[in-house]
Amino acid sequence: MAGNIFGKLFRISTFGESHGSALGGVIDGCPAGLELNFDEIQYELNRRKPGQSSIVTQRNEPDQVNFLSGIFENKTTGTPIGFIIYNKDHKSDDYKHIQNIYRPSHSDFTYENKYGIRDYRGGGRSSARETICRVVAGAIAKQLIKDIKITSYVSSVGDISINKSYKELDLSRKSIERHPIRCPDPSIAEKMIYKIQKIKNKGDTIGGTITSVIQNVPIGIGEPVFDKLHAELGKAMLSINAVKGFEYGSGFYGTKLTGSQHNDLFYKNGKTKTNLSGGIQGGISNGMDIYFRVAFKPVATIMQKQKTIDRNGNFVLMEGKGRHDPCVLPRAIPIVESMIALVLADYWMYTKLSKLNTPQY
Amino acid sequence: MAGNIFGKLFRISTFGESHGSALGGVIDGCPAGLELNFDEIQYELNRRKPGQSSIVTQRNEPDQVNFLSGIFENKTTGTPIGFIIYNKDHKSDDYKHIQNIYRPSHSDFTYENKYGIRDYRGGGRSSARETICRVVAGAIAKQLIKDIKITSYVSSVGDISINKSYKELDLSRKSIERHPIRCPDPSIAEKMIYKIQKIKNKGDTIGGTITSVIQNVPIGIGEPVFDKLHAELGKAMLSINAVKGFEYGSGFYGTKLTGSQHNDLFYKNGKTKTNLSGGIQGGISNGMDIYFRVAFKPVATIMQKQKTIDRNGNFVLMEGKGRHDPCVLPRAIPIVESMIALVLADYWMYTKLSKLNTPQY
Amino acid sequence: MAGNIFGKLFRISTFGESHGSALGGVIDGCPAGLELNFDEIQYELNRRKPGQSSIVTQRNEPDQVNFLSGIFENKTTGTPIGFIIYNKDHKSDDYKHIQNIYRPSHSDFTYENKYGIRDYRGGGRSSARETICRVVAGAIAKQLIKDIKITSYVSSVGDISINKSYKELDLSRKSIERHPIRCPDPSIAEKMIYKIQKIKNKGDTIGGTITSVIQNVPIGIGEPVFDKLHAELGKAMLSINAVKGFEYGSGFYGTKLTGSQHNDLFYKNGKTKTNLSGGIQGGISNGMDIYFRVAFKPVATIMQKQKTIDRNGNFVLMEGKGRHDPCVLPRAIPIVESMIALVLADYWMYTKLSKLNTPQY
Amino acid sequence: MAGNIFGKLFRISTFGESHGSALGGVIDGCPAGLELNFDEIQYELNRRKPGQSSIVTQRNEPDQVNFLSGIFENKTTGTPIGFIIYNKDHKSDDYKHIQNIYRPSHSDFTYENKYGIRDYRGGGRSSARETICRVVAGAIAKQLIKDIKITSYVSSVGDISINKSYKELDLSRKSIERHPIRCPDPSIAEKMIYKIQKIKNKGDTIGGTITSVIQNVPIGIGEPVFDKLHAELGKAMLSINAVKGFEYGSGFYGTKLTGSQHNDLFYKNGKTKTNLSGGIQGGISNGMDIYFRVAFKPVATIMQKQKTIDRNGNFVLMEGKGRHDPCVLPRAIPIVESMIALVLADYWMYTKLSKLNTPQY
Repeated sequence: MAGNIFGKLFRISTFGESHGSALGGVIDGCPAGLELNFDEIQYELNRRKPGQSSIVTQRNEPDQVNFLSGIFENKTTGTPIGFIIYNKDHKSDDYKHIQNIYRPSHSDFTYENKYGIRDYRGGGRSSARETICRVVAGAIAKQLIKDIKITSYVSSVGDISINKSYKELDLSRKSIERHPIRCPDPSIAEKMIYKIQKIKNKGDTIGGTITSVIQNVPIGIGEPVFDKLHAELGKAMLSINAVKGFEYGSGFYGTKLTGSQHNDLFYKNGKTKTNLSGGIQGGISNGMDIYFRVAFKPVATIMQKQKTIDRNGNFVLMEGKGRHDPCVLPRAIPIVESMIALVLADYWMYTKLSKLNTPQY
Repeated sequence: MAGNIFGKLFRISTFGESHGSALGGVIDGCPAGLELNFDEIQYELNRRKPGQSSIVTQRNEPDQVNFLSGIFENKTTGTPIGFIIYNKDHKSDDYKHIQNIYRPSHSDFTYENKYGIRDYRGGGRSSARETICRVVAGAIAKQLIKDIKITSYVSSVGDISINKSYKELDLSRKSIERHPIRCPDPSIAEKMIYKIQKIKNKGDTIGGTITSVIQNVPIGIGEPVFDKLHAELGKAMLSINAVKGFEYGSGFYGTKLTGSQHNDLFYKNGKTKTNLSGGIQGGISNGMDIYFRVAFKPVATIMQKQKTIDRNGNFVLMEGKGRHDPCVLPRAIPIVESMIALVLADYWMYTKLSKLNTPQY
Repeated sequence: MAGNIFGKLFRISTFGESHGSALGGVIDGCPAGLELNFDEIQYELNRRKPGQSSIVTQRNEPDQVNFLSGIFENKTTGTPIGFIIYNKDHKSDDYKHIQNIYRPSHSDFTYENKYGIRDYRGGGRSSARETICRVVAGAIAKQLIKDIKITSYVSSVGDISINKSYKELDLSRKSIERHPIRCPDPSIAEKMIYKIQKIKNKGDTIGGTITSVIQNVPIGIGEPVFDKLHAELGKAMLSINAVKGFEYGSGFYGTKLTGSQHNDLFYKNGKTKTNLSGGIQGGISNGMDIYFRVAFKPVATIMQKQKTIDRNGNFVLMEGKGRHDPCVLPRAIPIVESMIALVLADYWMYTKLSKLNTPQY
Repeated sequence: MAGNIFGKLFRISTFGESHGSALGGVIDGCPAGLELNFDEIQYELNRRKPGQSSIVTQRNEPDQVNFLSGIFENKTTGTPIGFIIYNKDHKSDDYKHIQNIYRPSHSDFTYENKYGIRDYRGGGRSSARETICRVVAGAIAKQLIKDIKITSYVSSVGDISINKSYKELDLSRKSIERHPIRCPDPSIAEKMIYKIQKIKNKGDTIGGTITSVIQNVPIGIGEPVFDKLHAELGKAMLSINAVKGFEYGSGFYGTKLTGSQHNDLFYKNGKTKTNLSGGIQGGISNGMDIYFRVAFKPVATIMQKQKTIDRNGNFVLMEGKGRHDPCVLPRAIPIVESMIALVLADYWMYTKLSKLNTPQY
C-alpha cells in the first residue's frame, strides 16, 4: 500500500485504525521558525470531535494530540513533527458481529479482497476516525499560510439547501459555529437540524454538500499541467470518506453556458468582474476567491436491519451497532478545511520556486 | 515548476508548447514484454486530431507520433519510451495580437504572474495541444490493461443531454464514433451537432459533459487513504483543460438520498444489486462498473469582440483569431479515456504489491 | 525539510530527537499478510542498544518499540504500521553547556544556519539516536525478504583490519555476535577491543570500516539508469551518521586493474568465476554475492578539552559531556543491515513490476 | 522500470538507447527567467563527445542538442524543457555477434533476466551513451547555480596518481583541459596518457579515479536524515556507468584517525581550520569546499578474445568489436560534473524552503 502520504513539500504520513491503540502521523517539510498556536490546533480537533452535539456520533474521545518532535520552545525546527492521539473509548465488542460479514456500501468487501486480511474493529483504517490526523496536520498548515482565509460551511442536507451565493452569507467563524450543523443561514440551519433529527430517529442517515471559500490567495499557486491547483484540491476532497463529487467555480452549471456568458472580463487591476472561473485559470490561482462544492453521500451505517452476505457468500441479516453519525457534514467541515490547508501549504511552497527573484516567504 | 509528471509506477513526463517545434514525452515504468499495436495508438490520436470534422478546429496537423526508444521488435523493453510529435501547422502570426494582452478566462494573466515570462504563441503550454502527449501514453496504458474496457461519450452539450443511464445505451465503438460529436444516442447527437453549429456561427462556444464507464475492473484497485481510486481519477479529469467538475457513482444526486436508499445490497457472489457506489468502496474497486461524469466549461476563445486588458493595465478591444473548437467535447473523449488508462495502469501495478502471494501479471 | 522519508514502495517516514519524549515512524507499503516475529525485531534493537557492552555509550534505554497500527493478529494488514519508542534516560542537563556553542565536526553550526533554530539537547535530530527507527523498519523489511541473507561485520578499527575475504570467515550470527565488537575473526576482534579501550581511556574516539555481504539475492533487482541497486545502497549507507565512504565489489582497488583482469567470466549456468563486479552488473543484481565496505569516521564527541566558538563568534573552551561511544562500529552493524534491508525490500517490490508474466511474490 | 527520473524539484527524465534513433529528456522544475548560454551547453557536450582525442572511442557523433520547449527568447519559461539528440554514427552491425551472447562484466545477462528482452545493439540503454542527456541537463543546472564552482579532474589512472591535495593544483579550466586526459598535473598527465596508449595497444582497458571539488557552496544545503547532501552526491556518482566507489572528505583514510585528529576546529567566522569533514556536517553544507573521489573500474569491452556464454548456456569465444574507450575517465569528467550540478540545483531549491524568512533566489 502506498496511499498514506499526502503532499510533496509539506508532506504528511499518517497511520492508525479506528480501534487501535492510537492514531498519529509525521509532518515532514514544515519550514522552521513557525510559532505554533496550540489552542488553534485543539480548536480544530474539537470541531471534528465526536459527541460535540446531539446530531453526531456519541463516541466519547478527548481527542488530544501529543506532539513528540520537531517543535522547540513552541517553534517548528525544520525536523519532522511526530504526533499521536490515543484512542480511549473504542468499544470493539460492538463490532464482533461484523467480523465475518461485509456491510453494504462499506469497504469490508474491498479491503478483504485487496489485502486478504481485515481489521474489522470499527472499520479499521477505512473509518473516518483516520481523518483526525489530517486535522492535526491541517491545523498546522493553516498557521503556515495564515494570510489565506479558508472557510467551509454546510450548504445542503438532503434536499434542503442554501439558495444564496457565499457572498450573501455571513461567513464569520461566529456565524458558522453558531449552529451545530455549521450552516451560516440561520433559518436553513434550523431546517437541516430538524431533518437530521427526523432521519436519525428512523435509524437512517442523510447526505449533503459542503461549500468552501478560499480568500486572499496569492496569484500564482498551482503547477500545470498535471498538478493544476483545482485538480489537487479535487483529489484532496475526493480522498475524504463519503465524498462523491467536486465542482469548482461554475462547475456543472457552467457546462450549460456559452463562452461569451462564461468568460470573466478583467478590471484594469487584473481582478475580474465575474468569477465563474472560481479563482483559478489554467490551473493557477488568479487572486480571486476560490470556491467549490463537495458532495457527501449518506453514511452507510444505518440503525436498521439489512440483508447482506458473509465471507462465505451466505446471506445474513445485520443491524447497525456502534455509535455513528446520522450526517457527517458538520464534523466534515474541519476535515475539508484541513485538506484545503494541506494542499495550499504544499503548493504555496512550490510557488517559491517558480521563477528566479521570487519574493521571500 | 513540478507538475509535468503523472503517475508513480507507470509515469509519464511530457513537454511541449502549442507553437513550439514539437511536443513529446517519456514513459518510465511500462513493464517489458508488452507487444504494441501502433494502429491503435494512431487511432486514438486521430480521434483527438484537429480538423477531423466541421465542428472542431481546422488546424491541420498529421499528429503522427515517432517512438524513439524503449521498444524493440515491437515490444516494450522495460527502458523508457521516448516519443515526439512535430508541430506542422502552427500559425504563430495569428497570436501576435495577444502578445501583450491577457485574454479573458485564459491563463495568460496567471502564467505571466507565476513565471514572469510567457510564450504567448498559441497559448504556449496552457494550450490543449499539450494533451496529445497524454493520448500517446494513454494509448499504451490501454494496451497494458487490455482486459479493462474504458468507454467515454458526450452526455450533454449545453442544455441538451442524454436522459438515460449508460446501461440503456449502445456503447460500442461503432455506435459512439458514428457521429462526430461522439454521443451514442443518435437523435440527441443530431441535436447536439445542430446546437454546436448554431453556436459556432455566432462565433461563440458551448460547454457540456462527458460520461465515462470502466468495465471489467479487477477487485482491489485503489490505495487508501489519500490515493483512493476515485480521488486519483478525479484529479486526472480535473487536470484536463476546461474541466470544472467531477462526480462518480451517485455523485451530487446521491447527497439527497438516505443511507437506506443509497446502500448497495450484495448478491451472494459479492456483486451488488444497485451500484450507487460507482464501482468503488473505501477507495478500492469492487468489481462493479466504475462510472463518472466530467463537466467541461465552454472554450474561452470566442470569435467575438471582447474588452480586456494589456499587461500595463490598459483596456483593449480584442477579437478571437486562430482556429478553435466551438465545443471541446468530441476531441476531449480520447483525452478523458487516456487519463483514465494512465490512472488505471499505474494503480493496477500497485495492486500487484498489495499482499503477499498475489497472482502474477 | 524533506529528507525524512526513505523508499518509494516500502516507505518509512521517521521522526524524533535524541532528547524528545519519543521517536517513531510510519511504514507505508508493507504488503499485507506478513506474519511478524517480534522477537527478531527486538533482537535487532538490542544489537543497537546503548549500554550493551563496555565499549559503547552507557545511556540506559530499554529501547522497546510499541506498534500502534497496521498489524492484526500478528500479521501486517497492508495499512500503515505506526510505531513509537519512548526516550527514558535522556539527561538533557548534560547538554546545557552546548546550548550556545558549536561543537567541532558536529552539525550544530549547519543546523542552526539552515533552520535558524536548533534543539541542542543531545544533538537533537542529528543524533544517531534517530537510527533506532531505521532498525525497527529494517527488521520488518528483513522479514519481508526473508530468503535474502544480510550479514555485516566490523572489518577494521583504526589501522587494525581483517586481511581476509569474507569468504574465509565464519559469518554465522554466533561467530559475529561472540565479541562485543562484532568482528568474526577472534584474534583481530581482541585487538580491536583492546584498541578501543585504550582510545576510550584517553577520552578519544576511533573510526573504522564495516563490511556487508548480501547472499541469495534474486537476479534482476535494480532500476537503471539513475536508481541502480548499488547507487541506492550507497546512498543508504552514506545517510548513516559518520559514514564517509562506500565501495562495492572491487571498489577503489579495482581502479588499478585492467579490463582483462577485472572481467568476471561466466560459468555455463550464468554464475561467474570471479566476482569483482560485486554481484551487480549495469545496476542490476546478477545472483552472485553483493558485498561492500563502508567507512566510518571517528565520533566527533571526545572527552577532551577543545577550543571552539559560540554563536556570537567568540572562542570558548568546551569539554565533552554526556555518554558517548568511543567507536560507533559495533552498534552501527544493525543500522547498516537495516538500511540494506530497506533498500532491498523496496527494490524487490519494484522487481515484481519489471516485466509481464512475472512470478508472484 | 522506474529509475529514469532524477531529482525531485529540478527533475530530469531521460530516454534513449545507444543505437536507437535518438536520446533525449525532459527537465521539469527549472525556475523561469534563467537566461541560457547555449555555447556553454555545447561546450560540456563536446567534452563528453566521442572522437575528441586519440585516447577515447572514435565513434563520430556531432552530439548536438535540439531544445524543443520551455525556452522563449533564450530564457526558461518555467514549463518543461524537452530536448533531443539524434544518433548519427551508430553501427549496429558491429553488435550482431553479441545478439545471443552475454558479454563478461556487461549487463547483457542482467537486463535479459530482468526484462525478458534486450536491445543488444550497442548495449542498448546500459551504454554510457545514455549519459549524454545527463550532460545536457547538468549544463543547464550549472547555469542555475552559477555562483557555485564545480571542478573535476582525473586524479589517477591505474596505479599512476596525483599525490597532491587539490589545493596544490591549478584547477582552472585551461589547466585541466590542456591535456586530453584532463589531469591538471602536467607531468602526471603525460604518464597517464602514455599508460592508456600502451593499454589500448594491447586491446585492454584501465580504471582510475576522478576527484571533484565544489567551491563557493552556500551554507545550509542538504536534507537530513535520509537525504543528506553527501548521500545524494554519492548516489549520483554511483549511478554513472563503471563507478565502484565514492568517498568524501577524509573518506576511507579518515577511518584510521582518532576524533581528536579528525575534528575540524573553528575559526571565529565559522570557517574551519582543517576540512576533513569535506564541507558537509550532519548532511548539510557548512560553506567549506566539498570534495570527493570517485572510483571507475576498467571498461569491460576489451579488444581481446574472451570465452563467454550464450543465452543457451553454451560456451562461445568472442572478440570485442565496435569503437570503445580504453579508459572512460576523460569523457567521464563532464558527466561527473553534470551529476553534481543536478544534485546541487535540486537541493539548492529545497534550501529555499528550509525556514521562514529565507532570502530570495
